Amino acid sequence: MKVKGFTAAAVQAGIRYQDRLDLGLIYSEIPAVTVGMFTTNTVQAAPVVLGRKRLLRHAKAQAVLVNSGNANACTGEQGMNVALHTSSLIADALEIEDDMVQVASTGVIGEQLDIEPFDREIPKLAASLHEDGFDDFAQAIMTTDTVPKTSSACVKINGVTINILGVAKGSGMIMPDMATMLCFVVTDARIPFSALNEIVQSGVERSFNLITVDGDTSTNDTVLVMANGAANNPWLDEENQEGVKIFTEALHKIFKDLALQIVSDGEGTTKVVTIRVIGARSQEEAMSGAQTIANSTLVKTAFFGEDANWGRIIAALGRSGCQFQPEQVSIAFDKVMMVENGLGCGKEAEELASQVLQQKEFTVTVDLRDGNESAEVFTTDLTYDYVKINADYRS
Amino acid sequence: MKVKGFTAAAVQAGIRYQDRLDLGLIYSEIPAVTVGMFTTNTVQAAPVVLGRKRLLRHAKAQAVLVNSGNANACTGEQGMNVALHTSSLIADALEIEDDMVQVASTGVIGEQLDIEPFDREIPKLAASLHEDGFDDFAQAIMTTDTVPKTSSACVKINGVTINILGVAKGSGMIMPDMATMLCFVVTDARIPFSALNEIVQSGVERSFNLITVDGDTSTNDTVLVMANGAANNPWLDEENQEGVKIFTEALHKIFKDLALQIVSDGEGTTKVVTIRVIGARSQEEAMSGAQTIANSTLVKTAFFGEDANWGRIIAALGRSGCQFQPEQVSIAFDKVMMVENGLGCGKEAEELASQVLQQKEFTVTVDLRDGNESAEVFTTDLTYDYVKINADYRS
Repeated sequence: MKVKGFTAAAVQAGIRYQDRLDLGLIYSEIPAVTVGMFTTNTVQAAPVVLGRKRLLRHAKAQAVLVNSGNANACTGEQGMNVALHTSSLIADALEIEDDMVQVASTGVIGEQLDIEPFDREIPKLAASLHEDGFDDFAQAIMTTDTVPKTSSACVKINGVTINILGVAKGSGMIMPDMATMLCFVVTDARIPFSALNEIVQSGVERSFNLITVDGDTSTNDTVLVMANGAANNPWLDEENQEGVKIFTEALHKIFKDLALQIVSDGEGTTKVVTIRVIGARSQEEAMSGAQTIANSTLVKTAFFGEDANWGRIIAALGRSGCQFQPEQVSIAFDKVMMVENGLGCGKEAEELASQVLQQKEFTVTVDLRDGNESAEVFTTDLTYDYVKINADYRS
Repeated sequence: MKVKGFTAAAVQAGIRYQDRLDLGLIYSEIPAVTVGMFTTNTVQAAPVVLGRKRLLRHAKAQAVLVNSGNANACTGEQGMNVALHTSSLIADALEIEDDMVQVASTGVIGEQLDIEPFDREIPKLAASLHEDGFDDFAQAIMTTDTVPKTSSACVKINGVTINILGVAKGSGMIMPDMATMLCFVVTDARIPFSALNEIVQSGVERSFNLITVDGDTSTNDTVLVMANGAANNPWLDEENQEGVKIFTEALHKIFKDLALQIVSDGEGTTKVVTIRVIGARSQEEAMSGAQTIANSTLVKTAFFGEDANWGRIIAALGRSGCQFQPEQVSIAFDKVMMVENGLGCGKEAEELASQVLQQKEFTVTVDLRDGNESAEVFTTDLTYDYVKINADYRS
């Protein structure tokens, strides 16, 4: 997959581990309209602070430098100087303005990021940029991820072919409200900032903000979408509703696809479960119920045990702040009704539900029968391997 | 330990498992002033609904019947009839009013509770009441608990000896705001309802509401404190401030002791960790920060891995809603300062902190340096055994 005017590359810089790609670069030949969304955590890594400031000023970027192995978070003034220094190295190598460089980091929090690997490798990195470099880039940004995550689309808008390519990483510290995840999308579409911003905001709301692995929000979450206009399509603005619609659908589909790839690759995950709360009085309450169920360690261990333990689901719902009448609630595992009017449907239903739980993917639908609002969250089971990965992560 | 006018007993009723005590009874020769606190979950088990109603009417009780193996929660009208029926059996056997009986249940949610074991065993249970029956009672209310939990005090107030004996259970579904726990305290003190109520409320706030194992609040949480006045002490009321003070300290100490026993016996737990947030602008924010850290699966798995991973602690704090300046925060493991002004204190500090983490108990102190308010929560590590216990619990 190629996107006009964009190139990418990655190198093994030995930032934390040897013999793996850990430093990636994306470059646009011309400054691209760029929308960024960043973590809502009060603690924000240096690259997040720097990136947000630059986008607020210019709403454009031309290069993105990403390292794995170290988050450059909780690193103070020294960490900010490292972020500034590495972005200057890129600006020099590519002969662009410092402010046109975005940097992102992922990995351990609280350790200073050594600049030596950047000094050493950035010239080589910049020199190896090529149209097909995105697969290498996708590998370079992985931490506990077991697979690289990419998604792309090619759509025709007003007779012009537009390419969109997305790359993401994420596996732990994943929770609605910007998970520990990085996502970079490049497109050759010509679109004004305001339109792109609206599409990105609504897309993140319906994708990355609906996934959870462990309920932890990171200090480094970043979504960047760069549109360089190289396709020379008619502007995607309010006078081109049809074009905006096609582009929105394509971008949102990529977001959703990447979000589901992240949750499927959640640390130690063996199952991906969709939690739907329907029939709620408000969307906020439905979301609060779905998120509390999706983050309950008791619910998630029951999924791992393939146990249709609906008592834990209703107990989590009951502490979520979502208002409901327990005696009206129904719960289904896929199409198997397990609970009707707050009561279990018996042994036969439980046996059928157990079969659903043996699947790698299934949906739990909780119907409150109290209104017309609903919400959906994507979660995982909680496994021995999750504990293993996170008890051992730094050692 | 004996408490005047109180007896207890337990039998093997085979409610869920054979050959273990699973049905316990406490009896007071005279109706005791009784304060009850119950789960805040929207979903409330039948015995909770019944017990609350009876205490609101009478503020007194004379008997408490508790079964393990089945929570009688999400069991609808049939479940309420079972609760009423079993309390009638006790009332008949002890020749007291139905309304003087409290019932409590713990175990699996969503299965109907069979009345046959109650019909069969209650006459035997009532006949075997004796002064030393509380150890058996403590065993009968256990589920995934590995040890029975009791705590007692004998204090002299106004020259009169007063005995207080507490029994508790709890291991999973444990979280501040009334954990899945049952706690029964009997005392021969003579005290009016209003004074006892105030002492119990403030005591629960400082004990059971400060522990967390997995962030899940159950449908059956109950604390009952019964004071039958058999000690004939001068009334513990507002005219007897000194007496109230001594009694309050003794009861609060028992609550705290039982709460720590519960968290120490948390499912799969190998460590008990005190999370203190100090220097906060408000008590609410300090508590929100402490609870979010205490419930973070990433923090809890790091404790299990004996990894002084303070980045996860500050990341959890950052999503807690607690306001703070990251560059002012300090974090200590016991007395080892790991973070000062938002920055790590280096390798040497980390090695010392690792030694602290090898202990079975330690304290993490997070100082926000932004005010004078503080909060403290008791939590556990998250282990392979937690996953094993909860993936297998119903099988």
